[in-house]
Amino acid sequence: MKLEYRNLRVALLGGGSVGAQVARLLLEQGPELANRVGATLELVGVAVRDVNAERTVDLPRELFTTNAEELILGADIVIELMGGIEPARSHILLAISSGADVVTANKALLALHGPELFAAANQVGAQINYEAAVAGAIPIVRPLRESLAGDQVKRILGIVNGTTNFILDRMDTEGSSLEDALAEATALGYAEADPTADIGGFDAAQKAAILASLAFHTAVPLASVYREGIELVTPAQIESARKAGYVVKLLAICERVTDENGVDGVSARVYPAMVPRSHPLAAVHGANNAVFVEAESAGSLMFYGAGAGGVETASAVLGDVVSIARRHVAGGPGVAASSYAALPVFDIGRVTTRYAVTLEVTDEPGVLATIASVFSKRKVSLALVEQSMTPAVMATKSRAARSATATLVIGTHDATEAALAATVQDLVTNSVVSEVASVLRVEGV
Amino acid sequence: MKLEYRNLRVALLGGGSVGAQVARLLLEQGPELANRVGATLELVGVAVRDVNAERTVDLPRELFTTNAEELILGADIVIELMGGIEPARSHILLAISSGADVVTANKALLALHGPELFAAANQVGAQINYEAAVAGAIPIVRPLRESLAGDQVKRILGIVNGTTNFILDRMDTEGSSLEDALAEATALGYAEADPTADIGGFDAAQKAAILASLAFHTAVPLASVYREGIELVTPAQIESARKAGYVVKLLAICERVTDENGVDGVSARVYPAMVPRSHPLAAVHGANNAVFVEAESAGSLMFYGAGAGGVETASAVLGDVVSIARRHVAGGPGVAASSYAALPVFDIGRVTTRYAVTLEVTDEPGVLATIASVFSKRKVSLALVEQSMTPAVMATKSRAARSATATLVIGTHDATEAALAATVQDLVTNSVVSEVASVLRVEGV
Repeated sequence: MKLEYRNLRVALLGGGSVGAQVARLLLEQGPELANRVGATLELVGVAVRDVNAERTVDLPRELFTTNAEELILGADIVIELMGGIEPARSHILLAISSGADVVTANKALLALHGPELFAAANQVGAQINYEAAVAGAIPIVRPLRESLAGDQVKRILGIVNGTTNFILDRMDTEGSSLEDALAEATALGYAEADPTADIGGFDAAQKAAILASLAFHTAVPLASVYREGIELVTPAQIESARKAGYVVKLLAICERVTDENGVDGVSARVYPAMVPRSHPLAAVHGANNAVFVEAESAGSLMFYGAGAGGVETASAVLGDVVSIARRHVAGGPGVAASSYAALPVFDIGRVTTRYAVTLEVTDEPGVLATIASVFSKRKVSLALVEQSMTPAVMATKSRAARSATATLVIGTHDATEAALAATVQDLVTNSVVSEVASVLRVEGV
Repeated sequence: MKLEYRNLRVALLGGGSVGAQVARLLLEQGPELANRVGATLELVGVAVRDVNAERTVDLPRELFTTNAEELILGADIVIELMGGIEPARSHILLAISSGADVVTANKALLALHGPELFAAANQVGAQINYEAAVAGAIPIVRPLRESLAGDQVKRILGIVNGTTNFILDRMDTEGSSLEDALAEATALGYAEADPTADIGGFDAAQKAAILASLAFHTAVPLASVYREGIELVTPAQIESARKAGYVVKLLAICERVTDENGVDGVSARVYPAMVPRSHPLAAVHGANNAVFVEAESAGSLMFYGAGAGGVETASAVLGDVVSIARRHVAGGPGVAASSYAALPVFDIGRVTTRYAVTLEVTDEPGVLATIASVFSKRKVSLALVEQSMTPAVMATKSRAARSATATLVIGTHDATEAALAATVQDLVTNSVVSEVASVLRVEGV
């Protein structure tokens, strides 16, 4: 049987934790994959910087080479798992121009140079698959690209960074400090030695750019993604959110929006936000990822699973390889990346959402009215005021003034970032406010 | 721009709640879809039994016809949403033989005649897409067919019937009886006038056959799917499960299994089972569906969303249409259905799982030892015994005998259905057992 199959030459760039697993699976599952594809997948080599470096998986020594270009020029399918911008970008462009299809998990590269790479691929009918670039093994790129191709995506709320979800989950369930939870994540191998990319939301922002581009058929540059990390999230905020029935998650948000002037556009942003406990995203614990998609016709969908890990990510890479291999057998060009919609990408100032603002205020009568008028002046309307305040703050008529302060938690209705920022500025300078203790956005309501 | 596009003729068979929504979306989103596909999608007609029947959506009268054959013969893509076996089967075979590709949501037809239809399609290089046949708008067919194509699926646990999930959820959260919850489901339009297909697990069994065939590359006939419905689930069972930290769900289970003799095979089965509260499936409420997939490399994934509804299902149908249309533009035959693995499908007797058995026993010393020996004789080992029993039952030494009965809840380790059935038979005839009140399988642990 096997002799009748066409042979497809697969070149692997990168021998790290994902690359080594991909190589192992290609070697181990060769016959099984050949049956699924109708072609044999021959791993012709693994390009690495140092052929003598130690690998997480024991692989035949003769597979390794430092000559990536030569490997690429002899391949039908090139799998790029080196990471980083260069030489990954040049290697992918070389693969496309030499007639190969490409599978990559390189989110940084796609977020920065996606349009260039897709344009090169579209020109020659090549395919770039990148399921592993977002949310590891969870199928999200293909569902957005194909399953929802006949629908209109309205919003995506994604937990797309396992490290920060692990940390926030520990803070929520164990009452840990951010530092302790980060130390635990590092000890468990979830966090890198330098955790900036995770903690600062940079990794999530790259994924937000990729998801928004896909979902809205619009090139969404990384630079247009608004980004806040979890550095400033405090146990007090988590505790206060928990009491109010919320959990704090770092969300990658991609949204179709219409601004105040009726202009349609899209927004991509990353920040820690309060999510209701009853929302399916609230049940995503540990280092897991999940992407919650709201579509015009399909309604709410959620895709859940492990967001990282060598073998998990390798599964997504292999799915992409099999998909390309099947097309090689069937013939026809690759599915082109689409960006025809070319919607404007809005600045965060034009986006509306809800907020929870925690204030330390003078504990005296009339304070609530004063605060309410600050919000009202900026046309930010109030949805709720937390009941934990003292009787003095609640009272609108005179009573004995007190020198102590009280805590006020205010939830707003939808407001623009610009209006909220102006409100916060007014609060900071208001004499009854001793501190703006916390401002958190509320999503998923 | 539009004039440059190739035109694809789309025939729709069926004008019910899903069909009407598909027609509406094709008409409304025509230009948008054309941009995504690179071809215009022209709805050439809707075949119905009665052109004058009332529709849920207002559609141009001239689209309707009773002549399905004529419509099919002039189409590039045929969407079959009539339901039932005939004439749906003949219509699909006619479409394939006349060179069209097919999109269908007909789970009953696929579960019964899938192999015949796929063989006909494979022979001519036609494609049959059926995302909407399982779990409505939730992308599960494509992820299994493509995203996990490089992985090995080990097990699928699916909540694939919204009506029964609604009923069990109401029994769990509101303490409703099955009858009251069913009445509520009927009032809300979730349940059909004759709810047998849902309540009896027949609908879920069809979906289990489709999922198992897909996941294991093996033709799994509907007749080989073991099936139990929720008719006999009692509020007492739900309450007892709840106290033990479980929730009762009707599960469609597809599993790679190795039997006692080391033979590899697959099992597909449907029954109400206890699922731990901490399992992601436990959080699937109301009429929602979710499919939990455990794969060798990818680990655990879950796909969640609305399982039914006209417009939701229409979204999945349109995704399938767009996918086929893109291939028409690109060229090449359709993705063939694969069943090369041809694994044996095991009878339920060869499958192992865990059980929770509730017994009414004589409340006297030594009873626990007697019961334990009944299980032990059949080599079913005990994982736990619920602590709600009386001191008399727990006591192994003599004490004053009592005439009252006590309730005993026993959890087992993995055991075969055959061993458990023999154990239950022994329990029924044992003199200390006054009643075997409940036997429920436990999944997801």
